Amino acid sequence: MSKPFVAILMGSDADLPEVEAAIDVLRTLNVHCEVRVHSAHRTPDATHRYVKDADFRGCAAFICCAGMAAHLAGVVASLTIKPVIGVPIDTGPLDGLDALLSTAQMPGGIPVATVAIGEAGAQNAAYLACQIIALGDADLAERLKADRRASAEDVLARNAILQKKLGA
Amino acid sequence: MSKPFVAILMGSDADLPEVEAAIDVLRTLNVHCEVRVHSAHRTPDATHRYVKDADFRGCAAFICCAGMAAHLAGVVASLTIKPVIGVPIDTGPLDGLDALLSTAQMPGGIPVATVAIGEAGAQNAAYLACQIIALGDADLAERLKADRRASAEDVLARNAILQKKLGA
Amino acid sequence: MSKPFVAILMGSDADLPEVEAAIDVLRTLNVHCEVRVHSAHRTPDATHRYVKDADFRGCAAFICCAGMAAHLAGVVASLTIKPVIGVPIDTGPLDGLDALLSTAQMPGGIPVATVAIGEAGAQNAAYLACQIIALGDADLAERLKADRRASAEDVLARNAILQKKLGA
Amino acid sequence: MSKPFVAILMGSDADLPEVEAAIDVLRTLNVHCEVRVHSAHRTPDATHRYVKDADFRGCAAFICCAGMAAHLAGVVASLTIKPVIGVPIDTGPLDGLDALLSTAQMPGGIPVATVAIGEAGAQNAAYLACQIIALGDADLAERLKADRRASAEDVLARNAILQKKLGA
Amino acid sequence: MSKPFVAILMGSDADLPEVEAAIDVLRTLNVHCEVRVHSAHRTPDATHRYVKDADFRGCAAFICCAGMAAHLAGVVASLTIKPVIGVPIDTGPLDGLDALLSTAQMPGGIPVATVAIGEAGAQNAAYLACQIIALGDADLAERLKADRRASAEDVLARNAILQKKLGA
Amino acid sequence: MSKPFVAILMGSDADLPEVEAAIDVLRTLNVHCEVRVHSAHRTPDATHRYVKDADFRGCAAFICCAGMAAHLAGVVASLTIKPVIGVPIDTGPLDGLDALLSTAQMPGGIPVATVAIGEAGAQNAAYLACQIIALGDADLAERLKADRRASAEDVLARNAILQKKLGA
Amino acid sequence: MSKPFVAILMGSDADLPEVEAAIDVLRTLNVHCEVRVHSAHRTPDATHRYVKDADFRGCAAFICCAGMAAHLAGVVASLTIKPVIGVPIDTGPLDGLDALLSTAQMPGGIPVATVAIGEAGAQNAAYLACQIIALGDADLAERLKADRRASAEDVLARNAILQKKLGA
Amino acid sequence: MSKPFVAILMGSDADLPEVEAAIDVLRTLNVHCEVRVHSAHRTPDATHRYVKDADFRGCAAFICCAGMAAHLAGVVASLTIKPVIGVPIDTGPLDGLDALLSTAQMPGGIPVATVAIGEAGAQNAAYLACQIIALGDADLAERLKADRRASAEDVLARNAILQKKLGA
Repeated sequence: MSKPFVAILMGSDADLPEVEAAIDVLRTLNVHCEVRVHSAHRTPDATHRYVKDADFRGCAAFICCAGMAAHLAGVVASLTIKPVIGVPIDTGPLDGLDALLSTAQMPGGIPVATVAIGEAGAQNAAYLACQIIALGDADLAERLKADRRASAEDVLARNAILQKKLGA
Repeated sequence: MSKPFVAILMGSDADLPEVEAAIDVLRTLNVHCEVRVHSAHRTPDATHRYVKDADFRGCAAFICCAGMAAHLAGVVASLTIKPVIGVPIDTGPLDGLDALLSTAQMPGGIPVATVAIGEAGAQNAAYLACQIIALGDADLAERLKADRRASAEDVLARNAILQKKLGA
Repeated sequence: MSKPFVAILMGSDADLPEVEAAIDVLRTLNVHCEVRVHSAHRTPDATHRYVKDADFRGCAAFICCAGMAAHLAGVVASLTIKPVIGVPIDTGPLDGLDALLSTAQMPGGIPVATVAIGEAGAQNAAYLACQIIALGDADLAERLKADRRASAEDVLARNAILQKKLGA
Repeated sequence: MSKPFVAILMGSDADLPEVEAAIDVLRTLNVHCEVRVHSAHRTPDATHRYVKDADFRGCAAFICCAGMAAHLAGVVASLTIKPVIGVPIDTGPLDGLDALLSTAQMPGGIPVATVAIGEAGAQNAAYLACQIIALGDADLAERLKADRRASAEDVLARNAILQKKLGA
Repeated sequence: MSKPFVAILMGSDADLPEVEAAIDVLRTLNVHCEVRVHSAHRTPDATHRYVKDADFRGCAAFICCAGMAAHLAGVVASLTIKPVIGVPIDTGPLDGLDALLSTAQMPGGIPVATVAIGEAGAQNAAYLACQIIALGDADLAERLKADRRASAEDVLARNAILQKKLGA
Repeated sequence: MSKPFVAILMGSDADLPEVEAAIDVLRTLNVHCEVRVHSAHRTPDATHRYVKDADFRGCAAFICCAGMAAHLAGVVASLTIKPVIGVPIDTGPLDGLDALLSTAQMPGGIPVATVAIGEAGAQNAAYLACQIIALGDADLAERLKADRRASAEDVLARNAILQKKLGA
Repeated sequence: MSKPFVAILMGSDADLPEVEAAIDVLRTLNVHCEVRVHSAHRTPDATHRYVKDADFRGCAAFICCAGMAAHLAGVVASLTIKPVIGVPIDTGPLDGLDALLSTAQMPGGIPVATVAIGEAGAQNAAYLACQIIALGDADLAERLKADRRASAEDVLARNAILQKKLGA
Repeated sequence: MSKPFVAILMGSDADLPEVEAAIDVLRTLNVHCEVRVHSAHRTPDATHRYVKDADFRGCAAFICCAGMAAHLAGVVASLTIKPVIGVPIDTGPLDGLDALLSTAQMPGGIPVATVAIGEAGAQNAAYLACQIIALGDADLAERLKADRRASAEDVLARNAILQKKLGA
């Protein structure tokens, strides 16, 4: 059987920097992903077809990046029962608060797993997708644990550098 | 040729009180409307079919009422080039601010004509739809002008009552 | 009979960049427009005269761009029963949230069709005006449909470019 | 010459409770006022005429109470060089934040003296109008000082009552 | 091997109404859950022990309900690599906006899957947990699809009732 | 008797750019002003003494510029019955929203006339002070009317330039 | 030497319910307090005198409760170098967000220790005052630790009750 | 017995500029501090150990700097009965509003003394820690008073410079 993969959709290719932050995490953790530019509003039919097809081909989770009235994650969530993760992007003058509310405040029955606005959120969307896949993939779970330990060691190393700097 | 009509969609029948405020205005101005419960998220296919069909049958404008992450107007706007009017509903704890931003902050190319949150917005959605239809219907334009005059006279009458009350 | 036209008003010539985004859309879709600097607060009489005159001469829709306590669209809407579209501009420190609320939260009876803050909103104001005029102009309706298809194709083309880039 | 007076305008007679709080302060300080229901949007011409007339008849300050997209104070301020005080009213779901921003964020050249949302603001609008008139009315200045002292004594009396209550 | 289960934590038993909305969804979809009152701030050690133990015993996803400075989901997420779903609760005067930001704005590396504020969010937390478990449980996936269809049918039935009511 | 003057206080000399916008308006309209750096928090006694002294010497209105938790206008208003105008300054990360609320939301009895955040507000504070003084100074009233006409002519001139530019 | 005590000030006796929540905590922990109604704006001189006197008599910390443009804590902080704790009260339509920003956003040099809006904040103000005094009072430190343990046991007891209820 | 010291924790070394503003104040006032990079989420165990150890070694107050969903201060406060001061940092697109609410809105029983967002807040955190320690250190109290006087003199000096500049 084919390995589960993550489908990353962005409403506009202007969102590519955030998407790349997600791709980096998935690559580091060795999880396959597909990346598509698909707009809920400009290409509703293509979005519909892609989601149905990716779902059928074994997509384990969708990551949807969109700004302003960010409807992409909600539209994708209405088309599948796979977990859909929404990343609000801070395009436009309201700094992503509009996208955060448009993504998080979904009505009962159609969940979107919302993460932080922007790049930190995109990274966490990838981590969350990996955590979901890791429930059925013990090796990935080990890689996630190692990554978490490395993250802690990085903080401790930065602390050690700071102690030297301040002690000087 | 059939007369143009207005299609009112609501994401949930809990939005009926606001929808009725819109229906009242349309009735007063003698403009035909259809009313449907159609959810962008729970019934995406039925919503899609209805919008395409109403559009084909001569719908002049869509009015979409939805709360929280209010995607309905945006989803409808992605399916038609007819004017789409979005009414943010104040369901949920954020008092409709989420619905206002989800409705108004549409990306370039897919407009939604957003009105005020709640009942005042629903009334104005109906007035706006009538103003749009009135561009091609001189009788309706006259009815709108008469209604505007009546509204002014109502304010003046209330002022006269107040003068008596305060003068007493 | 003269062709319907769109009247674009801006509260200050500092709003010209957003106005030009609207003009570009109208030019692309071959819809005539007039552009005026008229302030609701500094030139109330000139604004009043222009709106009445443009209305008489066959203006089909007004687009009003204003920032901060953006009263322009509301003031214009009080003078006409033609559709009035309000574009909140993000001048000032509050990023246009003040202009969005001042434009959208109109009381029942005097609708303003509010679009997104800033340039995306200005584009959509123009699209919305065209959608309104297209109800009585089948050629314009065809141009709008073609523009929508071109927009979808642009998204798909950007997706194709991305696939090549990521596949490399 | 006739005594200066205060003109209180409200956008809707639903704002009467706040207006009455302002009237009470003016009565206590023995300052004459006129009260009118005049809507910036529904009765623009009547508003225009009243402001011009009141201005001519010696109105010293205008107090404008309005909710939601509260344009009344700004519209009045565009018609006079007399001080205009704006009271944002908390009608609608946004608790008056919309009215506060619509009233306070006026562009340079057309000031509106904005006070707090709701009843406390309406009281302060009346106090502010009295402070303005008191610059040319030494008796009123004395009444304002006495009122301020009484307000301080009221706080001290409430403190004394509390001390007894807590000491019991 | 034991079946995967969902662990629901609430910061205070005042959050029980929202938690019960989540429990109802899990029961309907026949997914086992444990429910605990554990405060990130008052019982940090008990929270730590429970999360580590539940994780070891096969917990598939954590649902954390908390209001105000809602740290519970973030604290749990720092202790496990299992998916953690955060439900912001609208306790306190800020209507859950504080809890939404405290839950969603997690730094890169420690994801929390945030859902809507309050009861709708609690339902969606349960649906999301089921979607996650359903990736490895084809029967649950079928139950989720049936539930989604039933939800659509419920909307259509409400629409039919409305048609009768309005047509009467 | 000495001429009335305006006292401008700023909480920090970092607010000088906004203060200079106010000074420019007062100079143009030939109204005398005093300018002081006085902090409600760092120099409470000096602030107290200055306000009492300026009040005694015939100060007609106080203009207080302050950012963040902008208490200066409220503190000054507690020391005088002269009109106090508060200008919220957009220092700090919250863009002046904190200063706007700290200035506008005064309790009943102690009014602060609040204007827009930043430079536009500083200009309007000066205009408002002039409007207040003009009630007792017919020459200043004429200068204010001339300034208002000049402002309108400036808008019309900019409109004429735009017509040429767009007509080219 | 006299024992250190806590001074609780409230801007209005309408804030008494929140103040009583603070008093209850101080009584439970056996820390003496004085309670006063003193308004930064209505009784600035009495506030000044009380703060200076309480400071001289050994007040260890001030707790200031105020709503709307809550200046009380900042004004007190400008008069003493003792720790000042500010409790934002949710009076008025903005739910205490105005009071939170007015209390927390103090400029550098004059700190106010801000706690949560309303009753939870008032309790925490009392706990914080006790933590401060406990640095020099080992018995109080023990009482605080015991109270913290009792709070944890209360959570665990509620959890135990819930287990029975859900298990039944 | 060893002198009391202040422990400064930051969630990320990106917060060092704000931390250095706190260190500068502590150095000026001759109060010892320790500085650590410790993340509530990435290094929960190391944070736990450090807080317990610093508490045991005589730490008088903790200062915790963190941005976004700033849980650090709340997590530290759950581990000690020493005063914990939280500095919200304006990282991320929401300008620190998220961090302010995550830090200030703590539930009853676990206080965090919250100061302003960013550098001003970091300075005030240090001043507040000194005020707390000064309750048991009369020399430090004198240094704080001298620093407050110097701050007032600095304002007065800046005022004197301004008078010269404007008088020129």
